[in-house]
Amino acid sequence: MTDSKTEQAREYFRQNQDRIKAELSEFLSIPSVSADGSSREEVLRAAQYVKDSFLKSGADKAEIIATSGHPLIYAEKFSSLPNAPTILIYGHYDVQPPGDPADWITPAFQPSIRDNRIYARGAADDKGQVFMHIKTLEYLSKVGNLPCNLKYLIEGEEEISSANLDKAVEELKDLLTADTAFISDTDMIGKDLPSITVGLRGIAYFEIIVRSAVRDLHSGLYGGAVTNPFHILARILSQIVDVSGRVTIPGFYDKAHLPRPEDKLTAAAIAPRQTEAKQSLGVAEYIFEDGYTPYESATCRPSFDIHGMPGGHMEEGAKTIIPAFAKAKISFRLVPDQDPVEISELLKNWLLPLTPPTVKIEVTDLGSGKASLLTTDSKEYRTAAEAIKEVYGKEPLAVRCGGSIPVVSLFERVLGMPTVMLGFGLEEDAIHAPNESFDLEQFELGMATIVDFITKYGQAKNSG
Amino acid sequence: MTDSKTEQAREYFRQNQDRIKAELSEFLSIPSVSADGSSREEVLRAAQYVKDSFLKSGADKAEIIATSGHPLIYAEKFSSLPNAPTILIYGHYDVQPPGDPADWITPAFQPSIRDNRIYARGAADDKGQVFMHIKTLEYLSKVGNLPCNLKYLIEGEEEISSANLDKAVEELKDLLTADTAFISDTDMIGKDLPSITVGLRGIAYFEIIVRSAVRDLHSGLYGGAVTNPFHILARILSQIVDVSGRVTIPGFYDKAHLPRPEDKLTAAAIAPRQTEAKQSLGVAEYIFEDGYTPYESATCRPSFDIHGMPGGHMEEGAKTIIPAFAKAKISFRLVPDQDPVEISELLKNWLLPLTPPTVKIEVTDLGSGKASLLTTDSKEYRTAAEAIKEVYGKEPLAVRCGGSIPVVSLFERVLGMPTVMLGFGLEEDAIHAPNESFDLEQFELGMATIVDFITKYGQAKNSG
Repeated sequence: MTDSKTEQAREYFRQNQDRIKAELSEFLSIPSVSADGSSREEVLRAAQYVKDSFLKSGADKAEIIATSGHPLIYAEKFSSLPNAPTILIYGHYDVQPPGDPADWITPAFQPSIRDNRIYARGAADDKGQVFMHIKTLEYLSKVGNLPCNLKYLIEGEEEISSANLDKAVEELKDLLTADTAFISDTDMIGKDLPSITVGLRGIAYFEIIVRSAVRDLHSGLYGGAVTNPFHILARILSQIVDVSGRVTIPGFYDKAHLPRPEDKLTAAAIAPRQTEAKQSLGVAEYIFEDGYTPYESATCRPSFDIHGMPGGHMEEGAKTIIPAFAKAKISFRLVPDQDPVEISELLKNWLLPLTPPTVKIEVTDLGSGKASLLTTDSKEYRTAAEAIKEVYGKEPLAVRCGGSIPVVSLFERVLGMPTVMLGFGLEEDAIHAPNESFDLEQFELGMATIVDFITKYGQAKNSG
Repeated sequence: MTDSKTEQAREYFRQNQDRIKAELSEFLSIPSVSADGSSREEVLRAAQYVKDSFLKSGADKAEIIATSGHPLIYAEKFSSLPNAPTILIYGHYDVQPPGDPADWITPAFQPSIRDNRIYARGAADDKGQVFMHIKTLEYLSKVGNLPCNLKYLIEGEEEISSANLDKAVEELKDLLTADTAFISDTDMIGKDLPSITVGLRGIAYFEIIVRSAVRDLHSGLYGGAVTNPFHILARILSQIVDVSGRVTIPGFYDKAHLPRPEDKLTAAAIAPRQTEAKQSLGVAEYIFEDGYTPYESATCRPSFDIHGMPGGHMEEGAKTIIPAFAKAKISFRLVPDQDPVEISELLKNWLLPLTPPTVKIEVTDLGSGKASLLTTDSKEYRTAAEAIKEVYGKEPLAVRCGGSIPVVSLFERVLGMPTVMLGFGLEEDAIHAPNESFDLEQFELGMATIVDFITKYGQAKNSG
């Protein structure tokens, strides 16, 4: 480390790490599962914790803003410098459901530190990264002479497709206005191959329900004479994609932006890392569409996934019923220029002729968002790249991510500002899976990188 | 009623009905769910209740016989008449899982009587019918001069394919030897259209599991590059049957016994009743194989059902994962001459070429049994038909049932005796479904019919 600013930020983390880890553990122990209606109070408790942490860390103000769903937190700290640029930092405090408790080595909401990693649901996605920003604010507040105005928008519904965020951002437009947005909700390829995210896929999430009889029927007495709803559902789902995983719904690819030549270059740079990762994922081979690499298939091309098929007998042992209904939770990941609303209509129309008269099919939209593709030719990207080089000692790779953060296209559309996606997660964090964790060295390096970005961005604005 | 014997049996029920209903309620309140490993103690408690009830009802002896799974109850009461024939009465005290408690108007294991029906899991299948036999024994013991020797075999694993019954029956062969078996574990078409069951389908039940990555993966980060196990499972399941429900696995029908001309006649007799039933089932239309009626499709032809597809996200809301595994609980109903062992091999071999190198597939046998088809040209059938006519005032219809009671072919194979399947359930009992119930008038009519059968069978043997 040559830059004293980043070294000082790291030193601050190291000197305060016992307290910071204890605070982070407290935050992670709140089960803020947004998908679970029964967790509403816990989600609110997490929001309160975020607000209080901002105030304790030197924010000028922090408030909880109600929505029709889980609330947002807005916080700010302004610079005393004239013409200081404004950065809007976005993150989320809600988490994915933990899944089966038996799959966790230590409980999902009892944070545990092993080998300098903190294990808990939300450790990396995104409570740990949100807290990294809060502790960076704490550090900057103590140092003084804040180089930029900092605004924070921390939401509670990212894991359920940010259902109420559009409306809130429209309403809070004046409050949220900034020169750039900064988001740490992604990962980098590795500490030795740092990267900045320049692309996100969109998403269109649906629940399909096929209803047959009005109640479960004995499959001995009725099997062969009453439609089994899982037969219809399996047939439908198996026809959405072909064996290569390519979506077969006519019109699905009509507007899909094709991967660019530079995506092939990134794919080549990442390929050895992806090959290495197969072992820890327990994946025999990657799959990919004809003509594309696995990297492109997971980031620059649309995909279709089935997340679960509830209904009927889901417990142990043998139960002999024709279930009254069968459900599927499915989503399409979308690429730039695909419109989730159009995809929803395509799906619903495509289903009609596949619906036999013996069943009823309903499709419910469970959330959607558009894809994003950011330029590397901007002051914001260049500043972020310089900060990474400063802290990690290497020029970062510009990568596209297959995940969806609908807020990026929202900020562009409503607030007319660019976004920097600089996340400090790592592949091995196992987000959305059991035993999610966050590397505490990344927490420290992340703080240093954010400090450097804010410092350089303030200078760039004032000098440019 | 012209026969004083049947009228007296009914009178006995009516005079003791408060006590009998209270005892039956106590029996039904024990959650003897054999599929649920955590209910082992409750299942044993139900076995104990059955044993005690036999002893209180006049049995000479009653004992619990251990198996590798849930235990059997054996009980007996012998006639003092010389050359009295022996009847082995079979039933089961285990029940199907209750499913979602929210679907029950009154809790599955808190029996409730409404409109002369008793509501509880197992009310009709088969605890209610077992208890009807026990109370018939109680009545006959009080009357004295038992016309037949009565043996009882009540098992605890019928709902999980009688996994340990074969071995037990082989070992208890001498104890169980009888002139005929008598089973009340089926239903009749209606009180105004009484019927005797002469056919049962076999069953071959499997769990298929498709494994992809070693843990759930974020579907944004990996979607398109890692095989989704539900894609493979949906494709496999959708290929097991064609759109008409006909199984497409080569060789599946090779040994299947075809429906007989008399089955078409029964189908015609039942058709109006089936049409009527559609409304209460909430079924828009029945399905059927080309060339067959719905009755034949559900009783004389094999069928394939998917009972549930656990794995991944089964709770409310949206979770974005590629599940580590996807399971399917499936079964084939089989017709005479199809061998479950051969069907298991056919399925497993057929799956091999459908298994891509990116996943692992395991198939587990969860129980099986052969189909049965009984003659109407036997002393046993004729005696049962006369008893029905005596009590219901009508010649019964000989019907085939689509359900599976593997014990029928087992008794034929090991004990070399015929079986009478005279059950008193009704369509509206909703067995295997929420709000299962048993008509208490059928309990009374059933006692009278059983008394008449035992009386006539004793006379027939002594006179023939």
